[in-house]
Amino acid sequence: MPEQITKSTAVEAAEIAARSGGAFTQWSRLSSQERALFLVAIADALDANRDELVSIAAEETGLSEARLTGELNRTAVQLRLFATTIADGSYLDIRLDEADPEFALGQRPDIRRILVPRGPVVNFSASNFPFAFSVVGGDTAAALAAGCTVVVKAHSGHPRLSVRTHAVASEALTNAGAPAGVLQLVIGQEAGVALIRDEHIKVGSFTGSLYAGRLLADEAAARRDPIPFYGELGSVNPVVITPAAIAERGAGIAAEYVASVSGSAGQLCTKPGIVFASSAAALEGDISAHVGQVGEHRLLNKNISDGFDKRREEVLAADGVRVIAEGSLRRDEDGNAWVTPTIVAVGIDAFRRAGDALREEAFGPLSVIVESGDDADYAALLDEFFEGNLTTTLHVGAADSGQHLDELVRRAALTSGRVIFNQWPTGVAVTPAMQHGGPWPATTIDSTSVGTAAIQRFLRGVAYQNAPQDMLPAELRDQNPEAVPQHEDPAGSSWSWGKV
Amino acid sequence: MPEQITKSTAVEAAEIAARSGGAFTQWSRLSSQERALFLVAIADALDANRDELVSIAAEETGLSEARLTGELNRTAVQLRLFATTIADGSYLDIRLDEADPEFALGQRPDIRRILVPRGPVVNFSASNFPFAFSVVGGDTAAALAAGCTVVVKAHSGHPRLSVRTHAVASEALTNAGAPAGVLQLVIGQEAGVALIRDEHIKVGSFTGSLYAGRLLADEAAARRDPIPFYGELGSVNPVVITPAAIAERGAGIAAEYVASVSGSAGQLCTKPGIVFASSAAALEGDISAHVGQVGEHRLLNKNISDGFDKRREEVLAADGVRVIAEGSLRRDEDGNAWVTPTIVAVGIDAFRRAGDALREEAFGPLSVIVESGDDADYAALLDEFFEGNLTTTLHVGAADSGQHLDELVRRAALTSGRVIFNQWPTGVAVTPAMQHGGPWPATTIDSTSVGTAAIQRFLRGVAYQNAPQDMLPAELRDQNPEAVPQHEDPAGSSWSWGKV
Repeated sequence: MPEQITKSTAVEAAEIAARSGGAFTQWSRLSSQERALFLVAIADALDANRDELVSIAAEETGLSEARLTGELNRTAVQLRLFATTIADGSYLDIRLDEADPEFALGQRPDIRRILVPRGPVVNFSASNFPFAFSVVGGDTAAALAAGCTVVVKAHSGHPRLSVRTHAVASEALTNAGAPAGVLQLVIGQEAGVALIRDEHIKVGSFTGSLYAGRLLADEAAARRDPIPFYGELGSVNPVVITPAAIAERGAGIAAEYVASVSGSAGQLCTKPGIVFASSAAALEGDISAHVGQVGEHRLLNKNISDGFDKRREEVLAADGVRVIAEGSLRRDEDGNAWVTPTIVAVGIDAFRRAGDALREEAFGPLSVIVESGDDADYAALLDEFFEGNLTTTLHVGAADSGQHLDELVRRAALTSGRVIFNQWPTGVAVTPAMQHGGPWPATTIDSTSVGTAAIQRFLRGVAYQNAPQDMLPAELRDQNPEAVPQHEDPAGSSWSWGKV
Repeated sequence: MPEQITKSTAVEAAEIAARSGGAFTQWSRLSSQERALFLVAIADALDANRDELVSIAAEETGLSEARLTGELNRTAVQLRLFATTIADGSYLDIRLDEADPEFALGQRPDIRRILVPRGPVVNFSASNFPFAFSVVGGDTAAALAAGCTVVVKAHSGHPRLSVRTHAVASEALTNAGAPAGVLQLVIGQEAGVALIRDEHIKVGSFTGSLYAGRLLADEAAARRDPIPFYGELGSVNPVVITPAAIAERGAGIAAEYVASVSGSAGQLCTKPGIVFASSAAALEGDISAHVGQVGEHRLLNKNISDGFDKRREEVLAADGVRVIAEGSLRRDEDGNAWVTPTIVAVGIDAFRRAGDALREEAFGPLSVIVESGDDADYAALLDEFFEGNLTTTLHVGAADSGQHLDELVRRAALTSGRVIFNQWPTGVAVTPAMQHGGPWPATTIDSTSVGTAAIQRFLRGVAYQNAPQDMLPAELRDQNPEAVPQHEDPAGSSWSWGKV
């Protein structure tokens, strides 16, 4: 019997936002090394409470224990990653201009620049990642690391897990001596909207649907003082498979494709939703066989089940669609759908005519193979059909090369944040070089929500001019006690100086 | 007799935006070194046409030839600065994750991340910097350097200069072999609004009033596909002068203050608009004397003259205001105001009661000294009165130190982008460490429009996963022909890897 989770009121949200503002004063003044220790304390607490947290998550989301255990591990590693990132101090992008009395355009003063946290953040949790994009997930870890305080809006799909994860993290922070109010939680849409409007909140972040994300982005932009809103809203993650790739590795591609479409029941931001191939003929036998081996999987909740059910019916009913694997969909007593993968093929002309019915993201295990013919110009097709995606995947063979392929790679980079070769988009490394974000509608402000560069969402620059050494942040001083990397621009350089 | 400048229509704006999109394909593919040479070509052309450009600018803006010559020099230096910045390649923030078969959470692929240009930019020129923040000013230089194409919306205050500067720069680009359409110009508000709405345009930048900036920011946010809009909207640039500073350097401070308020007739974004001092008594004799030596200066145009006239009347009429230097204001036959500085003092309580009448920016040579009493808590005053400013200036003495001053410095950094000690805000170095931007309403998205970090406005990240060497941008290859700095994350590091 699930315990009752009470929704936060708008009044409570206002109090929580004010508390976040108060906590920011203390949290932002800690050294990076001090904040790093608190992040590690949260990671340790996740590890220590693994069994309980995974069990609640499995019950609320229907995701497998293996997947959830991996996700919890990743979430803990992610917190430690940001601890490492800030301990080094290179993220502060320290720049020191030496004073120069004989500058190109007159005198130049001593100027020292550092990045500082933007302020309290509201972070809207995702349905499909109850750990990695929720209470202490990526944006929370990056924001806390940057020196921002965080208020998390729990996702309605896993409220008990959200409350419990918050309790575990809060206890770890308190025991480690963190200021109160650094990480808070609200429940319910009303509180979430109140927060994005609240004057104490200086940044919004979000992972979810285009519809909800756009509403919140509009709220952030309509404030008396607009704030940055980093939303990940939707992506179909196109894949191109060349004839040469099919000839060389057709069977392996078919197997990997089915695994990528069906993993976590297709409820991944980077699921390959649309595949361009000259023809599906050489792949469909293998695809069909592999789908037959995929067990039934529950979708996250009733809302997502309804959405997937509707999209799947639209796809199956679209003119010219040929079913490769119809998949199954049955509802349980809670209204949750249990599904196996649906994979269809469609000719390029029918795909073109079908419009959004085949082009929009279907959140679940469904993918469309567009049979583009032998002479397809894949670069032109990417341009024609896609505005912005998290990823574009290219399966190419040894015979593929030259100007045609160069153009395809360029178009892929123009319309997405990650270009993948001969692998699949549904694994995202949490590393320095990762980019998880792309042009609209993949993200609202194109930036990354995964990897160490994600910390940049939560930072702004401040320059100190002609400051006495003891008035400078420690990282900007000549003495540089924490040995943070400092980029110096020595006197005698040719930069300019003028009046603004 | 000024030639007639025809306003661009919305239809022309659409054609220009489409041309910018076409040119972007070519411009963004050039190497950084190639783009750098084109920036230098524009700088050389400015230098070669200095006399003519300064003469048109002086006629249109009323700014002095000395000031305009300095500004043109700065603009040329700024273009060369960005040429140097991109030639080095560190701005690309290259990150290489080595493939790692034994990663913390499974296998890790080879991932390589680079920054790429966002796309065509519309850049709205400023009234007060006909060179440095106009056709080939800071945002244009940074955007072109990043690989974006640019459409400039000319400011109505200097249309002939805009057309001529654009012609000079275009000729230089063409002669150097640049693609057509890299830098274009439109005239008039209708075309400007059409551009911020146009689907080919991916970034907006702006320097001007809160009113116009907010309108454009709202347009950018309301698009079907919202785009980043970097606007610099307004700043009163508070100054704190401690009793110790007055005791040590009162006469010098008074002289420098008058110079900072009156330079370019106070029409600078960083003019010190509000000064907190325990009392103005020790300064006002010197201030008055120095103002008496400032000659009459024309304001930029009739709009700005009207605005300044109104604000000045409001300030002079506010309850409790004591005039230190009334200044003068007369209109010429074109409606332009000719002015000398107005400086007033007011007690803290009267300042508090006066609200926006004394607190809002007055664009022109006017500044308010707030007499805060001997026991003033300047940190609390900054907090009470200011939301966001480009700069905060602290004049302190040798006797000032300790917790009280630490708190003041922290609050200054919290509410502004540059904190200046014992100097004045109206000089902005165009250098790596400069920050010209601050919390709302100083800028819409807190970022810098001056200095090398300004290039970050125009870049987004793209990661390449498991790419064959010959499919990678040159800067990401092992061979690294241009020896761009590459930050490597070797196999064996502890980052994480999971499913998204």
